[in-house]
Formats: sequence, structure tokens, C-alpha cells
Amino acid sequence: MTPRLKTRFTEFFDVDHPVMLAPMDKVAGGALAAAVTRAGGLGLIGGGYGDAGWVEQAFRDAGNERVGIGFITWSVQKNQDLLEQALDHNPAALMVSFGDAEEIVKNAKARDIPTIWQVQTVVQAEQAVGAGVDVLVAQGQEAGGHGMDRGLMALLPAVRDAAGPDQIILGAGGIADGRGLAAALMLGADGVMMGTRFWASAEADGTDAAKAGLVAATGDGTVRSKVFDIARGLDWPWHYTGRSVRNAFADKWVNDIHDMKARAGEAQEAYDASDPDDLSVRALIAGEAVDLISRVESAADIVRRIVQDAADLLERAPHHLR
Amino acid sequence: MTPRLKTRFTEFFDVDHPVMLAPMDKVAGGALAAAVTRAGGLGLIGGGYGDAGWVEQAFRDAGNERVGIGFITWSVQKNQDLLEQALDHNPAALMVSFGDAEEIVKNAKARDIPTIWQVQTVVQAEQAVGAGVDVLVAQGQEAGGHGMDRGLMALLPAVRDAAGPDQIILGAGGIADGRGLAAALMLGADGVMMGTRFWASAEADGTDAAKAGLVAATGDGTVRSKVFDIARGLDWPWHYTGRSVRNAFADKWVNDIHDMKARAGEAQEAYDASDPDDLSVRALIAGEAVDLISRVESAADIVRRIVQDAADLLERAPHHLR
Repeated sequence: MTPRLKTRFTEFFDVDHPVMLAPMDKVAGGALAAAVTRAGGLGLIGGGYGDAGWVEQAFRDAGNERVGIGFITWSVQKNQDLLEQALDHNPAALMVSFGDAEEIVKNAKARDIPTIWQVQTVVQAEQAVGAGVDVLVAQGQEAGGHGMDRGLMALLPAVRDAAGPDQIILGAGGIADGRGLAAALMLGADGVMMGTRFWASAEADGTDAAKAGLVAATGDGTVRSKVFDIARGLDWPWHYTGRSVRNAFADKWVNDIHDMKARAGEAQEAYDASDPDDLSVRALIAGEAVDLISRVESAADIVRRIVQDAADLLERAPHHLR
Repeated sequence: MTPRLKTRFTEFFDVDHPVMLAPMDKVAGGALAAAVTRAGGLGLIGGGYGDAGWVEQAFRDAGNERVGIGFITWSVQKNQDLLEQALDHNPAALMVSFGDAEEIVKNAKARDIPTIWQVQTVVQAEQAVGAGVDVLVAQGQEAGGHGMDRGLMALLPAVRDAAGPDQIILGAGGIADGRGLAAALMLGADGVMMGTRFWASAEADGTDAAKAGLVAATGDGTVRSKVFDIARGLDWPWHYTGRSVRNAFADKWVNDIHDMKARAGEAQEAYDASDPDDLSVRALIAGEAVDLISRVESAADIVRRIVQDAADLLERAPHHLR
């Protein structure tokens, strides 16, 4: 029997465990989101850049499980129809990240849909709290995929201090096991959101080769950069960067991003010409916590173990006192 | 009465608290190092780039308190005399950081002087463990001053896994209060090393203006870059960067460091021509944990509160279980 950790997050969503699935673009599909919810956490579908057909399929794949959905703020703002379509599913929560989501939050709240806003700085946290968001996610630069520069160890307590004692806050970035969950609680969080750990799961939408790549990768071997946004021609605001596994393609450009930007056409052409399964060129998005991932597992096993290990650490914590 | 936390670090050095002073170059002088030791932690003098006269004065200022000393590896390797001079003081520990310190560790061990090696990656941790170092410090990118890119949240547990269960490990970077200490213990550390928090102390060698700057600074407003190494003409290996408070000078160069390198002479001239107290130009070295620092305090108060707050969190940790 897996122990249960009680936090404001578990109370608010009435779930067993303070563990949320990061809505990874087209990786967190309906099967994974449903599996995380079924395991006692909260699963979010990765709405990402907004593919209406994919989102519909994901909700269908989730079946009757209660799941939420997450979007990239600046992208979904250009696609109001998709946002309405998602809200019509009455998701367990609507999550947004990367941009000012005040209007989106207002819209979701008007429909009584819980809102989650991921932030990367203290200033953004203050903005999200001001908008009345239900749950803040403080994301450290350790995270896979898009983010900014602040490390979670200092960001999380600072966000807690800025947001006040009653705000529900999750920590994200660099967390893949019970040590990270226990540490996040000590830093003032009410739980964690995990991406990379759940990507290396049986239920994630992704190739076996990509998942094997995550297991083989090291934290030292990841890098946060603009390389793959430029290569993919994605219109990200310049201050957001993405963490992925260093490969030959990244190595070619990462040390002079201004040069890459100036030669973006050349870089995009090389990227597009490559085999989508060629991990020496294509982005393998992963966070620094890959060091802590030694095999592909079911989402249920991942949730069970992180909670069990965190509970053990928390139970023994007073033994540090003498 | 401040509670006491028992870890492998406190046992090894026979100190009351698992808190070590970062040997900040010319900021951690004898008065500060002695004050941290007197408060029950372990104080280290900041030998930095190696100024023999300053080091002598620091040892004198520490009086009869038991203090260690830390050096920048690649710098002190060019100054064997200074290293011998420091070892002749029979310091409580010799700490090294930034480079392969195998020979230095061997030298200190031959004299029965405990050794501490700060690392920024898992690969470096394996090298340090291979050299038989007594204490590893895993430093996250959140730290003020020099460091690399990995975030402490994921680095610390990965270093623990790589170094094995018996290695003494401290976490550093982004830690300034009891939450950080408690979190570090959950992540597998035996204690913490703090720099910025102790710089904002009464005993630190630094101007009141600089200390007031630390109190006023925000974590969002710091940046890790090569700017101030280029400006100061310091010969740091390229993969090490330094975190400081963003100011007008940093803003001018930080977004195109290749351009700055190409125009290094111009940048250095402007830097050298400025008033050393002009914080719009000069480097105010600080970590992301400045958000957690609201006033200049005595080292004793800092040690007392971080331990008390961490002990409270650890004692209450089992309450998370229901």
C-alpha cells in the first residue's frame, strides 16, 4: 500500500498523490495522462502548439479518467477556437505556460475550470498570483524543454515568499524521484510536476529509440539553448530556451547562437533533411534529471515509487536531529 | 539553544552544524571564517587567486579559531609556494575548486590535512572521488561567482548516486536559509556550503554599499556569464562562468559574449576606468538566493537561524504523511 502525502494540492484536486504530469507537447497523450490520474496523481494532456485533431484524440484516449490539459500560452493565444474546444471537454485543469495568461485564466475561471500557471521567475509568479490562478508551477532551468535560467533550489522558496503561504505551488525541473519530491516539500512546494521522468514511461507517446535515449542520457550531457527552436523554425520569444540532450547538431551551433540565427536557413535545411529518428540531429528533449532515470517504467510504478521514497525520507527526517 | 543536526560532515569535522562558509575570494577573510567556526560551522578563508600577504593576514585575523582555506585550482597550481604556505598553517581543511586537483589533494593528504573538492558536474565528482577527496561539494549554477550550468536540484542526487553512500557531500548554490538546508539533506547531502548569505554578514570583507546591494538584489536580476571575467582580464577556462547582479555594464555585453570577446580591450578599459564602488559597472557577485536575504546579519545569527529553521522543517516532515 503506497503511503499518501497530504498537501494543499492533493486537497484541492482531491487526488491521492502530490504528483502532476507535465503536459509535454504530443508526448503526454491521453493514455499517459489517464495512467497518471489512475495512479493517484493528476495527468495533463500536452496540448503544446495546438493541433486540434491531436487534442481530440488525446481526450478520447483518456477515456473516462479525469485529466487536464496544458498549452503554450503565446501559441494558444493565436488559436482561441482550440482553447474553447479544450474547455468544452471540462478538463480537470487548464494549464498555461510561457506568457501572460491573464485573459485565459479569467476565461477558464468563468467556467469553473481550475487553472495552473507555470512560471520561471519571481516576477512572473507575482503576475500569475495577481491573475488569481489556482495553482502555480515554479519551473527551474533544470527542466527538459522550454524554460528560462533560474534554478529551482532558489526559485521555489522565493516564489513561496512572493506568493504567500496560502498559494498552491508545485516545483518542476530536475525532479525524477522521491528525493526531489521530499526536497520540493522542504522548499515550500505542495507537490511536483514531472516531465522527463514520465516521458521515459511505457504509456508516453514516443519511439522506443527516444525512450532508450533518455535512459542512456546524462544530466551533464544536456544543454539549454535556442538551437532546436531555430532549427525547427519555431517562433519562441527569445528569452525562452529549451533543454535537450547534446548531440552533434547541437554541438555545431550551441556556442555561437548569433551565428546560427544569422544562418538560420542553412540550419533549418539540414535539420529538415535529416531522418526524424536520427538522434544525432533531431532534438531529444530531456531535463537534467535524466541521471536519475535508469529504465522505462509504467506511469503507475513511477508514481508509486516516488511517493514511497519521499514518504520514507520524510518519515526519517527527524533522525537528522540529535 | 540551537538544535544540532548530525551528519557525516559534522562527525568528520567534529562541528556542531552542517554549515560551511564558501571561501569567497577576499570576502571570506579571517574574521568571517572564525565567526562561522565559532558559531558551530566550519569557516574557510577565501584564498582565491592567491595573494600571499592577504592569506597571511587572514590566518592572523582568524586567531585561534580552527579555519580552513580554499583556492581556485587552476590559479593556485601556478603558485606552489602559496599552497605550501597555506598548508604550513595546518588548516582545518584545504578546499579546491575549478580544475583537476588530484596532485593538490595528494599533497594535503600526505600532511593529514582534510581535503574538500568542489565540483560542478557528475563527471568531475567521479574524478574527485577517484582522487580520494574527503568531502565533495556539489555546486549548482544558482551559486554566486564562478560555476557551470547544472542545477543543484538534479545535480546533488546524481552526485550522491555517482559517489556512493559513504562519501561526504555538501550542496552549494542557491541555499541561504533553513529550507535550502533541509532540502539539501533530502537530496542526499550531508550539509551545505553558503557564499552569498555569508557575504551579507557583518564580518565579511566588503563595503557597506556592496552588502546593501546584496540585500536589494533579486534572483531574477542575477546573471551567469563571462562578462566580468573578460572585463577584468581574468584567465578563466572558457567553460566556467560567473554569476553576478545584472547592471548596466553587464546588460551592454551579456547577450553577445563573442562580440565582447572580440572587443575585450575596449570593455576592459571601460571597466578599469570606473570607480571601484560604482555598482552600475563593477561586478557585484551574488547567487540566486539573494531573494532570501533581507538584511545584513552576524555570521552567528545566520548559522543559528538556518539550523533552527531546518530542524523545525525536518521535525515536522512526517506530518506530510496522512
